[in-house]
Amino acid sequence: MIIELCANPRYSRPVIDDVTEPAAADFELPRVLAALADRHRLATVQFVARTGESWCARVMQDIGLPMSKSTFSHHLRILREAGVVTKRTEGTKSYMCVRKADLDARFPGLIDSILNADAEMVS
Amino acid sequence: MIIELCANPRYSRPVIDDVTEPAAADFELPRVLAALADRHRLATVQFVARTGESWCARVMQDIGLPMSKSTFSHHLRILREAGVVTKRTEGTKSYMCVRKADLDARFPGLIDSILNADAEMVS
Repeated sequence: MIIELCANPRYSRPVIDDVTEPAAADFELPRVLAALADRHRLATVQFVARTGESWCARVMQDIGLPMSKSTFSHHLRILREAGVVTKRTEGTKSYMCVRKADLDARFPGLIDSILNADAEMVS
Repeated sequence: MIIELCANPRYSRPVIDDVTEPAAADFELPRVLAALADRHRLATVQFVARTGESWCARVMQDIGLPMSKSTFSHHLRILREAGVVTKRTEGTKSYMCVRKADLDARFPGLIDSILNADAEMVS
């Protein structure tokens, strides 16, 4: 939803964002693993971890995710609520970033092992 | 189901086991993560990785898993089909073991990072 609003400047009303991004101390390992246990979310995290903070709309495009923007927003919500990524809005664009430092602090080695695994196919 | 048969020698008919444990080369990271993304399965894997090959019925008891034997068998199936654990039957007892060498070979560091995380609460 957020992505759709951002992608269409005609609807530039304030973005309502009810997603809670947890503090690192509140991360739950099963929830982090569940967030990463989907091949599209996994490919997204692997891509963004390599490229650094990325414009959400471009992430979808560059990876070639076969889904609508609203579906991507749903996946983004799951990743944010687990603590895997954070989102920042600047003007009409949203950017996402992997919370690698927080994840490394809570679960040392987990994200590196996932990033070092072969990138998953998304098609 | 298998566990129930093993626990009751009166029903000592041949155990039908239709679970396919994949070769390490066929492991899929999203599937492994999904298998570990449940707090009861995660606690089981953390426990068995620490204790070594374990009698399935005792694993449930020692961790204090709040579930029926058939539910535990369902979780065991998910772990086996992802490649996280293997099961061996000896007489009327079933034993499970974490496939750490195979997991380390395919996803270096993944299982260690999960085992080094604080053991999850299961109650």
